[in-house]
Amino acid sequence: MKPRFYYAPKTCALATHIVLEHIGIDYEGIKLDFRENQQRTKEYLAVNPKGRVPALVTDRGVITETPALLLYLAQTYPQAELAPLSDPFALAEMQAANSWFCSTVHVVHAHGPRGSRWSDDAAAQQSMKAKVPQNMSECFAWVESELLRGPWVMGANFTVADPYLFTMSSWLTSDGVDIAKFPRVAEHYKRMLEMPAVRKVMPLHGM
Amino acid sequence: MKPRFYYAPKTCALATHIVLEHIGIDYEGIKLDFRENQQRTKEYLAVNPKGRVPALVTDRGVITETPALLLYLAQTYPQAELAPLSDPFALAEMQAANSWFCSTVHVVHAHGPRGSRWSDDAAAQQSMKAKVPQNMSECFAWVESELLRGPWVMGANFTVADPYLFTMSSWLTSDGVDIAKFPRVAEHYKRMLEMPAVRKVMPLHGM
Ligand SMILES: N[C@@H](CCC(=O)N[C@@H](CS)C(=O)NCC(=O)O)C(=O)O
Ligand SMILES: N[C@@H](CCC(=O)N[C@@H](CS)C(=O)NCC(=O)O)C(=O)O
Repeated sequence: MKPRFYYAPKTCALATHIVLEHIGIDYEGIKLDFRENQQRTKEYLAVNPKGRVPALVTDRGVITETPALLLYLAQTYPQAELAPLSDPFALAEMQAANSWFCSTVHVVHAHGPRGSRWSDDAAAQQSMKAKVPQNMSECFAWVESELLRGPWVMGANFTVADPYLFTMSSWLTSDGVDIAKFPRVAEHYKRMLEMPAVRKVMPLHGM
Repeated sequence: MKPRFYYAPKTCALATHIVLEHIGIDYEGIKLDFRENQQRTKEYLAVNPKGRVPALVTDRGVITETPALLLYLAQTYPQAELAPLSDPFALAEMQAANSWFCSTVHVVHAHGPRGSRWSDDAAAQQSMKAKVPQNMSECFAWVESELLRGPWVMGANFTVADPYLFTMSSWLTSDGVDIAKFPRVAEHYKRMLEMPAVRKVMPLHGM
Protein backbone atom coordinates (compact mmCIF):
# COMPACT_ATOMS: atom_id res chain seq x y z
CA MET A 1 0.00 0.00 0.00
CA LYS A 2 1.18 3.51 -0.82
CA PRO A 3 1.41 5.67 2.32
CA ARG A 4 -1.46 8.16 2.48
CA PHE A 5 -0.53 11.67 3.62
CA TYR A 6 -3.25 13.98 4.98
CA TYR A 7 -2.55 17.69 4.90
CA ALA A 8 -4.26 21.05 4.70
CA PRO A 9 -2.84 24.01 2.79
CA LYS A 10 -0.42 26.32 4.62
CA THR A 11 -0.52 24.32 7.84
CA CYS A 12 2.38 22.70 9.67
CA ALA A 13 1.81 19.68 7.40
CA LEU A 14 3.87 21.60 4.84
CA ALA A 15 7.10 20.51 6.57
CA THR A 16 6.38 16.79 6.26
CA HIS A 17 5.00 17.29 2.75
CA ILE A 18 8.29 18.80 1.57
CA VAL A 19 10.24 15.92 3.10
CA LEU A 20 8.03 13.29 1.42
CA GLU A 21 8.70 14.95 -1.95
CA HIS A 22 12.37 15.55 -1.27
CA ILE A 23 12.96 11.86 -0.51
CA GLY A 24 10.90 10.92 -3.54
CA ILE A 25 8.48 8.64 -1.71
CA ASP A 26 5.59 7.22 -3.72
CA TYR A 27 2.70 8.45 -1.55
CA GLU A 28 -0.87 9.58 -2.02
CA GLY A 29 -1.52 13.14 -0.84
CA ILE A 30 -4.99 13.88 0.49
CA LYS A 31 -5.95 17.52 0.96
CA LEU A 32 -8.40 18.49 3.69
CA ASP A 33 -10.33 21.74 3.43
CA PHE A 34 -10.36 23.43 6.84
CA ARG A 35 -12.97 25.99 5.72
CA GLU A 36 -15.32 23.02 5.45
CA ASN A 37 -14.02 21.51 8.70
CA GLN A 38 -12.95 18.35 6.89
CA GLN A 39 -10.57 17.63 9.78
CA ARG A 40 -13.67 16.93 11.91
CA THR A 41 -15.50 14.47 9.64
CA LYS A 42 -16.15 10.97 10.93
CA GLU A 43 -13.89 9.54 8.21
CA TYR A 44 -10.96 11.70 9.15
CA LEU A 45 -11.42 11.24 12.88
CA ALA A 46 -11.12 7.49 12.16
CA VAL A 47 -7.65 8.27 10.73
CA ASN A 48 -6.59 10.79 13.37
CA PRO A 49 -8.96 11.11 16.34
CA LYS A 50 -7.15 14.31 17.31
CA GLY A 51 -8.70 15.98 14.24
CA ARG A 52 -5.44 17.60 13.17
CA VAL A 53 -2.99 17.39 10.30
CA PRO A 54 -0.47 16.08 9.39
CA ALA A 55 -1.17 12.34 9.52
CA LEU A 56 0.62 9.63 7.58
CA VAL A 57 -1.11 6.28 7.11
CA THR A 58 1.47 3.51 6.72
CA ASP A 59 1.20 -0.28 6.47
CA ARG A 60 1.78 -0.49 10.20
CA GLY A 61 -0.52 2.30 11.32
CA VAL A 62 -0.95 6.04 11.50
CA ILE A 63 1.77 8.50 12.51
CA THR A 64 0.92 12.01 13.72
CA GLU A 65 2.88 14.95 15.17
CA THR A 66 5.36 16.76 12.95
CA PRO A 67 8.56 16.07 14.94
CA ALA A 68 7.70 12.35 15.06
CA LEU A 69 6.93 12.23 11.33
CA LEU A 70 10.11 14.06 10.40
CA LEU A 71 12.32 11.73 12.44
CA TYR A 72 10.43 8.69 11.13
CA LEU A 73 11.07 9.71 7.52
CA ALA A 74 14.73 10.47 8.21
CA GLN A 75 15.20 7.08 9.89
CA THR A 76 13.20 5.09 7.34
CA TYR A 77 15.09 6.60 4.39
CA PRO A 78 18.63 6.95 5.76
CA GLN A 79 20.08 7.25 2.24
CA ALA A 80 18.45 10.69 2.04
CA GLU A 81 20.73 11.84 4.90
CA LEU A 82 18.16 14.10 6.52
CA ALA A 83 19.35 13.79 10.13
CA PRO A 84 22.56 13.00 12.06
CA LEU A 85 21.23 9.50 12.77
CA SER A 86 24.41 7.96 14.14
CA ASP A 87 25.21 10.74 16.62
CA PRO A 88 22.78 10.95 19.56
CA PHE A 89 24.06 14.36 20.67
CA ALA A 90 23.75 15.96 17.22
CA LEU A 91 20.36 14.29 16.81
CA ALA A 92 19.28 15.73 20.17
CA GLU A 93 20.20 19.20 18.94
CA MET A 94 18.04 18.68 15.85
CA GLN A 95 15.21 17.24 17.92
CA ALA A 96 15.45 20.21 20.31
CA ALA A 97 14.99 22.57 17.36
CA ASN A 98 12.00 20.61 16.07
CA SER A 99 10.48 20.27 19.52
CA TRP A 100 10.78 24.01 20.06
CA PHE A 101 9.17 24.77 16.67
CA CYS A 102 6.31 22.47 17.65
CA SER A 103 5.74 23.50 21.26
CA THR A 104 6.70 27.19 21.14
CA VAL A 105 6.71 28.78 17.66
CA HIS A 106 3.74 26.84 16.29
CA VAL A 107 1.83 27.45 19.53
CA VAL A 108 2.57 31.19 19.38
CA HIS A 109 1.24 31.28 15.81
CA ALA A 110 -1.87 29.26 16.73
CA HIS A 111 -2.95 31.96 19.20
CA GLY A 112 -3.97 34.00 16.13
CA PRO A 113 -6.38 31.69 14.29
CA ARG A 114 -7.10 29.23 17.10
CA GLY A 115 -7.43 31.25 20.30
CA SER A 116 -10.70 29.45 21.05
CA ARG A 117 -8.62 26.44 22.09
CA TRP A 118 -7.50 28.30 25.22
CA SER A 119 -10.32 30.73 26.00
CA ASP A 120 -14.05 30.89 25.31
CA ASP A 121 -14.05 34.66 25.62
CA ALA A 122 -14.03 36.74 22.42
CA ALA A 123 -12.15 39.66 23.98
CA ALA A 124 -9.49 37.28 25.32
CA GLN A 125 -9.11 35.70 21.89
CA GLN A 126 -8.70 39.16 20.44
CA SER A 127 -6.02 40.01 22.96
CA MET A 128 -4.12 36.79 22.21
CA LYS A 129 -4.26 37.57 18.51
CA ALA A 130 -2.89 41.03 19.21
CA LYS A 131 0.22 39.57 20.86
CA VAL A 132 1.09 37.20 18.00
CA PRO A 133 3.32 39.64 16.06
CA GLN A 134 5.40 40.42 19.17
CA ASN A 135 5.74 36.76 20.16
CA MET A 136 6.58 35.61 16.63
CA SER A 137 9.16 38.40 16.40
CA GLU A 138 10.76 37.24 19.65
CA CYS A 139 10.85 33.64 18.42
CA PHE A 140 12.49 34.68 15.17
CA ALA A 141 14.98 36.98 16.89
CA TRP A 142 16.11 33.82 18.68
CA VAL A 143 16.23 31.84 15.41
CA GLU A 144 18.24 34.64 13.78
CA SER A 145 20.81 34.99 16.57
CA GLU A 146 21.08 31.48 18.00
CA LEU A 147 19.24 28.60 16.39
CA LEU A 148 19.99 29.00 12.69
CA ARG A 149 23.66 28.11 12.26
CA GLY A 150 23.64 28.62 8.52
CA PRO A 151 23.38 27.90 5.77
CA TRP A 152 21.02 25.29 7.23
CA VAL A 153 19.46 25.12 10.68
CA MET A 154 21.97 22.57 11.93
CA GLY A 155 24.92 24.04 10.02
CA ALA A 156 26.53 22.56 6.92
CA ASN A 157 24.00 19.77 6.45
CA PHE A 158 20.40 20.07 5.33
CA THR A 159 18.11 18.20 7.75
CA VAL A 160 14.37 17.81 8.37
CA ALA A 161 14.63 20.86 10.65
CA ASP A 162 14.93 23.02 7.50
CA PRO A 163 11.50 22.35 6.00
CA TYR A 164 10.15 22.82 9.53
CA LEU A 165 11.78 26.26 9.89
CA PHE A 166 10.64 27.11 6.36
CA THR A 167 7.07 26.30 7.41
CA MET A 168 7.28 28.53 10.48
CA SER A 169 8.85 31.32 8.38
CA SER A 170 6.05 31.03 5.81
CA TRP A 171 3.58 32.13 8.51
CA LEU A 172 5.38 35.39 9.33
CA THR A 173 3.59 37.66 6.84
CA SER A 174 0.11 36.59 7.91
CA ASP A 175 1.27 36.89 11.53
CA GLY A 176 2.13 40.53 10.93
CA VAL A 177 5.91 40.17 10.95
CA ASP A 178 8.24 41.29 8.17
CA ILE A 179 10.74 38.51 7.47
CA ALA A 180 13.20 41.18 6.27
CA LYS A 181 13.80 42.04 9.96
CA PHE A 182 15.66 38.70 10.12
CA PRO A 183 18.14 38.66 7.22
CA ARG A 184 19.58 35.22 7.94
CA VAL A 185 16.09 33.72 8.20
CA ALA A 186 15.09 35.49 4.98
CA GLU A 187 18.12 33.98 3.22
CA HIS A 188 17.23 30.53 4.54
CA TYR A 189 13.69 30.99 3.22
CA LYS A 190 14.99 31.97 -0.21
CA ARG A 191 17.39 29.03 -0.25
CA MET A 192 14.48 26.70 0.52
CA LEU A 193 12.42 28.23 -2.31
CA GLU A 194 15.03 26.97 -4.75
CA MET A 195 14.58 23.33 -3.79
CA PRO A 196 12.65 21.22 -6.32
CA ALA A 197 10.58 19.59 -3.54
CA VAL A 198 9.50 23.00 -2.27
CA ARG A 199 8.59 24.17 -5.78
CA LYS A 200 6.51 21.07 -6.27
CA VAL A 201 4.66 21.26 -2.95
CA MET A 202 3.98 25.01 -2.72
CA PRO A 203 1.24 25.11 -5.38
CA LEU A 204 -0.57 22.29 -3.54
CA HIS A 205 -0.67 24.66 -0.56
CA GLY A 206 -1.87 27.62 -2.63
CA MET A 207 1.46 29.36 -2.05
CA MET B 1 32.85 15.97 33.49
CA LYS B 2 29.63 14.88 35.18
CA PRO B 3 26.59 16.05 33.25
CA ARG B 4 24.84 18.94 35.02
CA PHE B 5 21.04 18.80 35.08
CA TYR B 6 19.06 22.00 35.70
CA TYR B 7 15.51 21.62 36.97
CA ALA B 8 12.87 23.37 39.00
CA PRO B 9 10.48 21.56 41.32
CA LYS B 10 7.23 20.21 39.85
CA THR B 11 8.03 21.40 36.33
CA CYS B 12 8.29 19.32 33.17
CA ALA B 13 11.94 18.73 34.15
CA LEU B 14 10.57 16.00 36.42
CA ALA B 15 10.31 13.61 33.45
CA THR B 16 13.98 13.87 32.50
CA HIS B 17 14.97 13.82 36.17
CA ILE B 18 13.28 10.46 36.69
CA VAL B 19 14.99 9.02 33.61
CA LEU B 20 18.43 10.21 34.77
CA GLU B 21 17.88 8.42 38.09
CA HIS B 22 16.31 5.36 36.53
CA ILE B 23 19.32 4.83 34.26
CA GLY B 24 21.64 5.47 37.19
CA ILE B 25 23.63 8.23 35.53
CA ASP B 26 26.22 10.00 37.67
CA TYR B 27 25.01 13.59 37.23
CA GLU B 28 24.89 16.77 39.25
CA GLY B 29 21.37 18.10 39.82
CA ILE B 30 21.00 21.88 40.11
CA LYS B 31 17.73 23.21 41.42
CA LEU B 32 16.44 26.60 40.27
CA ASP B 33 13.97 28.53 42.38
CA PHE B 34 11.30 29.99 40.10
CA ARG B 35 9.90 32.16 42.92
CA GLU B 36 13.22 33.98 42.77
CA ASN B 37 13.24 33.92 38.97
CA GLN B 38 16.51 32.01 38.95
CA GLN B 39 15.70 30.88 35.38
CA ARG B 40 16.31 34.49 34.31
CA THR B 41 19.72 35.11 35.92
CA LYS B 42 22.64 35.94 33.67
CA GLU B 43 24.36 32.70 34.74
CA TYR B 44 21.43 30.52 33.78
CA LEU B 45 20.74 32.37 30.54
CA ALA B 46 24.34 31.53 29.60
CA VAL B 47 23.37 27.85 30.00
CA ASN B 48 19.94 28.07 28.35
CA PRO B 49 19.19 31.41 26.70
CA LYS B 50 15.52 30.37 26.49
CA GLY B 51 15.34 30.75 30.29
CA ARG B 52 13.52 27.47 30.77
CA VAL B 53 14.12 24.09 32.36
CA PRO B 54 15.08 21.32 31.80
CA ALA B 55 18.61 21.72 30.48
CA LEU B 56 21.38 19.13 30.50
CA VAL B 57 24.97 20.27 30.19
CA THR B 58 27.08 17.55 28.61
CA ASP B 59 30.71 17.40 27.44
CA ARG B 60 29.54 18.29 23.96
CA GLY B 61 27.12 21.06 24.84
CA VAL B 62 23.69 21.80 26.26
CA ILE B 63 20.53 19.87 25.44
CA THR B 64 17.10 21.39 26.03
CA GLU B 65 13.50 20.38 25.26
CA THR B 66 12.03 17.40 27.07
CA PRO B 67 11.31 15.16 24.03
CA ALA B 68 14.87 15.71 22.77
CA LEU B 69 16.38 14.97 26.19
CA LEU B 70 14.33 11.82 26.66
CA LEU B 71 15.32 10.41 23.27
CA TYR B 72 18.94 11.39 23.84
CA LEU B 73 19.06 9.50 27.13
CA ALA B 74 17.34 6.45 25.64
CA GLN B 75 19.80 6.41 22.73
CA THR B 76 22.91 7.11 24.81
CA TYR B 77 22.09 4.35 27.32
CA PRO B 78 20.55 1.65 25.10
CA GLN B 79 21.13 -1.02 27.77
CA ALA B 80 18.37 0.66 29.81
CA GLU B 81 15.88 -0.24 27.03
CA LEU B 82 13.84 2.92 27.35
CA ALA B 83 12.67 3.21 23.74
CA PRO B 84 12.08 0.94 20.71
CA LEU B 85 15.33 2.15 19.18
CA SER B 86 15.61 -0.35 16.36
CA ASP B 87 12.07 0.07 15.03
CA PRO B 88 11.44 3.48 13.39
CA PHE B 89 7.66 2.99 13.33
CA ALA B 90 7.39 2.06 17.01
CA LEU B 91 9.79 4.89 17.84
CA ALA B 92 7.58 7.30 15.86
CA GLU B 93 4.61 6.23 17.97
CA MET B 94 6.57 6.99 21.13
CA GLN B 95 7.81 10.30 19.72
CA ALA B 96 4.24 11.22 18.73
CA ALA B 97 3.14 10.67 22.33
CA ASN B 98 6.03 12.77 23.67
CA SER B 99 5.52 15.48 21.07
CA TRP B 100 1.83 15.69 21.96
CA PHE B 101 2.62 15.91 25.69
CA CYS B 102 5.02 18.76 24.90
CA SER B 103 2.99 20.76 22.39
CA THR B 104 -0.56 20.12 23.59
CA VAL B 105 -0.88 18.88 27.20
CA HIS B 106 2.01 20.93 28.62
CA VAL B 107 0.78 23.98 26.70
CA VAL B 108 -2.77 23.53 28.02
CA HIS B 109 -1.38 23.38 31.58
CA ALA B 110 0.84 26.44 31.03
CA HIS B 111 -2.23 28.59 30.31
CA GLY B 112 -2.88 28.49 34.06
CA PRO B 113 0.38 29.82 35.56
CA ARG B 114 1.86 31.37 32.40
CA GLY B 115 -0.99 33.09 30.56
CA SER B 116 1.14 36.23 30.29
CA ARG B 117 3.10 34.50 27.55
CA TRP B 118 0.15 34.83 25.21
CA SER B 119 -1.75 37.89 26.39
CA ASP B 120 -0.88 41.08 28.28
CA ASP B 121 -4.45 41.48 29.48
CA ALA B 122 -5.29 40.39 33.04
CA ALA B 123 -8.89 39.50 32.19
CA ALA B 124 -7.74 37.39 29.24
CA GLN B 125 -5.22 35.60 31.45
CA GLN B 126 -8.02 34.92 33.91
CA SER B 127 -10.22 33.49 31.20
CA MET B 128 -7.41 31.20 29.96
CA LYS B 129 -6.87 29.97 33.49
CA ALA B 130 -10.58 29.25 33.78
CA LYS B 131 -10.47 26.92 30.77
CA VAL B 132 -7.52 24.82 32.02
CA PRO B 133 -9.60 22.22 33.90
CA GLN B 134 -11.79 21.56 30.86
CA ASN B 135 -8.83 21.34 28.47
CA MET B 136 -6.77 19.12 30.78
CA SER B 137 -9.83 16.87 31.21
CA GLU B 138 -10.17 16.57 27.44
CA CYS B 139 -6.49 15.74 27.07
CA PHE B 140 -6.71 13.06 29.73
CA ALA B 141 -9.93 11.61 28.33
CA TRP B 142 -7.87 11.00 25.19
CA VAL B 143 -4.99 9.49 27.20
CA GLU B 144 -7.45 7.23 29.02
CA SER B 145 -9.26 5.96 25.92
CA GLU B 146 -6.57 6.00 23.23
CA LEU B 147 -3.00 6.85 24.10
CA LEU B 148 -2.28 4.76 27.20
CA ARG B 149 -2.10 1.16 26.02
CA GLY B 150 -1.36 -0.24 29.47
CA PRO B 151 0.28 -1.12 31.63
CA TRP B 152 2.72 1.41 30.14
CA VAL B 153 2.05 4.17 27.61
CA MET B 154 3.47 2.14 24.72
CA GLY B 155 2.09 -1.19 25.97
CA ALA B 156 4.14 -3.98 27.53
CA ASN B 157 7.41 -2.04 27.68
CA PHE B 158 8.27 0.86 29.95
CA THR B 159 9.68 3.77 27.91
CA VAL B 160 10.63 7.39 28.44
CA ALA B 161 7.01 8.28 27.58
CA ASP B 162 6.02 6.95 31.03
CA PRO B 163 7.86 9.49 33.20
CA TYR B 164 6.54 12.13 30.78
CA LEU B 165 2.93 11.02 31.25
CA PHE B 166 3.56 10.78 35.00
CA THR B 167 4.71 14.42 34.96
CA MET B 168 1.60 15.58 33.10
CA SER B 169 -0.60 13.53 35.49
CA SER B 170 1.13 15.09 38.50
CA TRP B 171 -0.26 18.49 37.42
CA LEU B 172 -3.92 17.39 37.39
CA THR B 173 -4.77 18.25 40.99
CA SER B 174 -3.41 21.79 40.82
CA ASP B 175 -5.14 22.14 37.43
CA GLY B 176 -8.47 21.40 39.08
CA VAL B 177 -8.94 17.91 37.66
CA ASP B 178 -9.56 14.78 39.72
CA ILE B 179 -7.30 11.99 38.43
CA ALA B 180 -9.89 9.47 39.69
CA LYS B 181 -12.03 10.38 36.67
CA PHE B 182 -9.42 8.50 34.62
CA PRO B 183 -8.96 5.10 36.27
CA ARG B 184 -6.33 3.78 33.84
CA VAL B 185 -4.29 6.99 34.18
CA ALA B 186 -4.64 6.78 37.97
CA GLU B 187 -3.32 3.21 37.90
CA HIS B 188 -0.40 4.28 35.72
CA TYR B 189 0.37 7.06 38.20
CA LYS B 190 0.32 4.59 41.12
CA ARG B 191 2.53 2.16 39.21
CA MET B 192 5.05 4.95 38.62
CA LEU B 193 5.00 5.88 42.32
CA GLU B 194 6.41 2.42 43.09
CA MET B 195 9.53 2.96 40.99
CA PRO B 196 12.72 3.59 42.99
CA ALA B 197 13.75 6.42 40.66
CA VAL B 198 10.42 8.16 41.24
CA ARG B 199 10.70 7.74 45.01
CA LYS B 200 14.16 9.23 44.91
CA VAL B 201 13.27 12.22 42.73
CA MET B 202 9.91 13.24 44.22
CA PRO B 203 11.29 14.73 47.45
CA LEU B 204 13.66 16.89 45.38
CA HIS B 205 10.52 18.33 43.74
CA GLY B 206 8.75 18.84 47.06
CA MET B 207 6.22 16.16 46.14
N1 LIG C 1 1.59 19.14 17.39
C1 LIG C 1 0.98 18.88 16.11
C2 LIG C 1 0.01 20.01 15.78
C3 LIG C 1 -0.91 19.70 14.65
C4 LIG C 1 -1.84 20.88 14.40
O1 LIG C 1 -2.23 21.60 15.33
N2 LIG C 1 -2.21 21.07 13.14
C5 LIG C 1 -3.13 22.16 12.79
C6 LIG C 1 -2.71 22.82 11.49
S1 LIG C 1 -1.15 23.69 11.63
C7 LIG C 1 -4.53 21.60 12.61
O2 LIG C 1 -4.71 20.51 12.09
N3 LIG C 1 -5.56 22.36 13.04
C8 LIG C 1 -6.92 21.97 12.81
C9 LIG C 1 -7.82 22.36 13.93
O3 LIG C 1 -7.36 22.89 14.96
O4 LIG C 1 -9.02 22.11 13.78
C10 LIG C 1 2.05 18.76 15.04
O5 LIG C 1 3.12 19.35 15.19
O6 LIG C 1 1.84 18.04 14.04
N1 LIG D 1 9.16 22.75 25.40
C1 LIG D 1 9.98 22.82 26.62
C2 LIG D 1 9.25 23.66 27.63
C3 LIG D 1 10.11 24.05 28.78
C4 LIG D 1 9.31 24.90 29.78
O1 LIG D 1 8.42 25.67 29.38
N2 LIG D 1 9.64 24.78 31.09
C5 LIG D 1 8.94 25.56 32.08
C6 LIG D 1 8.67 24.71 33.32
S1 LIG D 1 7.50 23.42 33.03
C7 LIG D 1 9.82 26.74 32.49
O2 LIG D 1 11.04 26.61 32.56
N3 LIG D 1 9.21 27.92 32.75
C8 LIG D 1 9.93 29.03 33.24
C9 LIG D 1 9.42 30.34 32.73
O3 LIG D 1 8.48 30.34 31.91
O4 LIG D 1 9.96 31.35 33.16
C10 LIG D 1 10.20 21.40 27.14
O5 LIG D 1 9.38 20.53 26.87
O6 LIG D 1 11.24 21.16 27.77
